[in-house]
Amino acid sequence: MSSILPHPEMARRAALLGPSPMDEFLGAADRGATISLAGGLPDAATFPVRDVAEAARRVLSRQPRESLQYGPSEGLAPLREWVAEYLRGQGIELQAAQVLITTGSQQALDLLGKVLLDPASPLLVQRPTYLGALQAFRTYAPRMVGLPEDDLGPDPEAFAGALAGSRMAYLQPRFANPSGRSIAPARAGQLCALLAQSDCWLVEDDPYCELWFDEPPPPGLLARGVSHGVHVGTFSKMLFPGLRLGWVAGHAELLRKLTQAKQAADLQSSSLDQWLLLELLRDGLPQRMLPRLRILYRERRDAMLDALSRHMPAGVFWSRPRGGMFVWLSLPMSLDARDIAAAARRQGVLVLPGLVFDVGAGGCESFGSCCDCRFADDPEAAAPARNTLRLAFAGADRPRIERAISILAAVVRAALHGDSQAPARPCRAVGKTPADGAVDVSHA
Amino acid sequence: MSSILPHPEMARRAALLGPSPMDEFLGAADRGATISLAGGLPDAATFPVRDVAEAARRVLSRQPRESLQYGPSEGLAPLREWVAEYLRGQGIELQAAQVLITTGSQQALDLLGKVLLDPASPLLVQRPTYLGALQAFRTYAPRMVGLPEDDLGPDPEAFAGALAGSRMAYLQPRFANPSGRSIAPARAGQLCALLAQSDCWLVEDDPYCELWFDEPPPPGLLARGVSHGVHVGTFSKMLFPGLRLGWVAGHAELLRKLTQAKQAADLQSSSLDQWLLLELLRDGLPQRMLPRLRILYRERRDAMLDALSRHMPAGVFWSRPRGGMFVWLSLPMSLDARDIAAAARRQGVLVLPGLVFDVGAGGCESFGSCCDCRFADDPEAAAPARNTLRLAFAGADRPRIERAISILAAVVRAALHGDSQAPARPCRAVGKTPADGAVDVSHA
Repeated sequence: MSSILPHPEMARRAALLGPSPMDEFLGAADRGATISLAGGLPDAATFPVRDVAEAARRVLSRQPRESLQYGPSEGLAPLREWVAEYLRGQGIELQAAQVLITTGSQQALDLLGKVLLDPASPLLVQRPTYLGALQAFRTYAPRMVGLPEDDLGPDPEAFAGALAGSRMAYLQPRFANPSGRSIAPARAGQLCALLAQSDCWLVEDDPYCELWFDEPPPPGLLARGVSHGVHVGTFSKMLFPGLRLGWVAGHAELLRKLTQAKQAADLQSSSLDQWLLLELLRDGLPQRMLPRLRILYRERRDAMLDALSRHMPAGVFWSRPRGGMFVWLSLPMSLDARDIAAAARRQGVLVLPGLVFDVGAGGCESFGSCCDCRFADDPEAAAPARNTLRLAFAGADRPRIERAISILAAVVRAALHGDSQAPARPCRAVGKTPADGAVDVSHA
Repeated sequence: MSSILPHPEMARRAALLGPSPMDEFLGAADRGATISLAGGLPDAATFPVRDVAEAARRVLSRQPRESLQYGPSEGLAPLREWVAEYLRGQGIELQAAQVLITTGSQQALDLLGKVLLDPASPLLVQRPTYLGALQAFRTYAPRMVGLPEDDLGPDPEAFAGALAGSRMAYLQPRFANPSGRSIAPARAGQLCALLAQSDCWLVEDDPYCELWFDEPPPPGLLARGVSHGVHVGTFSKMLFPGLRLGWVAGHAELLRKLTQAKQAADLQSSSLDQWLLLELLRDGLPQRMLPRLRILYRERRDAMLDALSRHMPAGVFWSRPRGGMFVWLSLPMSLDARDIAAAARRQGVLVLPGLVFDVGAGGCESFGSCCDCRFADDPEAAAPARNTLRLAFAGADRPRIERAISILAAVVRAALHGDSQAPARPCRAVGKTPADGAVDVSHA
């Protein structure tokens, strides 16, 4: 920091901001020469370019003034109506008045942090959980409480213990990022019963629910009748991300405050994009795109699982996700996934160490003083996921997945044999990690 | 509030959020039957619909993948380059790396609040000042300090006294909303000299600088070499607002933090909109649109000034703005502008009382406990602008302006004569108000 000249004071929360671990791990990479299994970017080859061009032509002919003018902070009324109807189809009973259109689901998370979190408010999150949520929430300096989980979802006993006095529980019920897990129906019922007795807000983040490979996922949590909660969703994964449109919907009084916060934060999301999206939705784009996306991403998941089973050495485990975009991989405990990720990057393959998704003891190193772990006195539960990696399969085709996994496997093998390219650091963590309990874990 | 059911606790800052005074004053109006002089909406008849349609066609043909994919949080590189070059043309020396693209300038204000303001941080604002800025900043619970001003801009002595220990000075240097004033060159030099000796950030908000009627305005404050500052701007007033794109640019270290905050807040602004805007800029749209906008808005300003001078009774004063979108009107002290606005609304004319733009003693009523006035012990300086109105001339054509002003004038006359349609409330405020010192004030 010695290069930074003195300047006037900033807010204390500025110290809670930092570069994204994504940027730290990926920023220096020569993207031209790499295969990325790091980001959650959809494959641009799936983008409905002609539909968007045709929708733009129609919108600018039919709504030329509305689409270029200011619009309501809540979002375009018929678009909110579409979301409400969609959510009712998911089993969540609500009206369009309970829907706020946001600039991607990321903005919904930021607004929820702003409206719900005081400094040191206890915030329950899964281990591991979505990095973007941690970034949004940490700005408001909550006390993050990591929930241990097994194959079926967050541990109910730990959840019950942590709920008392907590302000918000942030859960991804289906095909979670990064673990790929869904909360099993019986477990979801247990968690909802506990939530109903609590004084804690439920924030259900559900971006991947349409990307199922075999059968539609079980209902989420809000569909089970949790009253003090909201559903967060996005069009970025269901269609394409460039419009940056998502939503938050649910509890009426909370939505009223979120809308006021949205107005103060950016007045409204793009009018033109909202009209374009509405046109695409009315034109039936999701019904045309989703079947193709499901087949494509299933093929890529299969390609990755196939490559992993052929290339990875013994002692490496991974999840077998039934939807979403990610495989969660667990290395032998002697390896530090950060070293593996760094060595793979040098060989042109980008992956993210699982540590960046974890608010456990290890996560605190990444996330600084805003983090806390309710289970810090239980060394087993608090163990950081130092030996895990997230592998995104949605954005690369089969040959690139095959090549990337073979390189990654070679890096792992070299590290296991003490090759200097990937120096195995002594691992300070002991005990089981979240990945050890992954769904359908397969041995290589 | 009795209709609201109990729910879990929200953040303390949720109590600082409320409906916009715009919504409070305008929400119930039947917009079909009204003439609005209330909002800062541009005239939709000026929108370059064919240019946007053609740009959409080109972008989706040339950048089909980039425009529908995720993009950088900082904004599109060539768009940042355009803004940097534009600002250098305005006399502000900076590079594209010092530019962040935001979702309208409103988001820039929110991010500045987030990164710079702690609870009770002293924040200097003009009296009156932009309502949207007050809404963005109040979320962070600063101590707002109102700066009295005269025709030439904020009073230098008061500014010098308030600067010590203040965290941020928020100033609109040119054609300010709502007053229409510009800071005179000599005054700007004085303020900049004081800022240079201070430990206070300058936030210069300059959305209207291109909407001049007679000659380009004098340089702003940042162009005079203030090092600890940023410039906030928008394409909404220069072109059209539907894309919701603006910028914040300046101090490199502050921009780094703002970019991190932007990433946590919404990842990025719409990719498609940024590509569209870039195409429009490269195609020379501002050079084509601005001359027409300047002529159109000057005609409307003239129409409003003409109508005011023909219809308003003695004792009413108003500004003669040389740019921007607003006339600032001062009623006789016996009248409360809120009553006048309410009575005008009943007759189909929407205007905003000046009180909502003022953080003085009167503003505190609108803005609650987050506001404070350094000059509260000076009853004259702290007097709220109870007798002022903001009249937007940009969005209505000459016949509608003529009709609206004649109705408004009739309401004022009726109130002065004690007509029951606009009951004159006893005015608690005494002493001079900011409007009394408006530039080029004309007597009707």
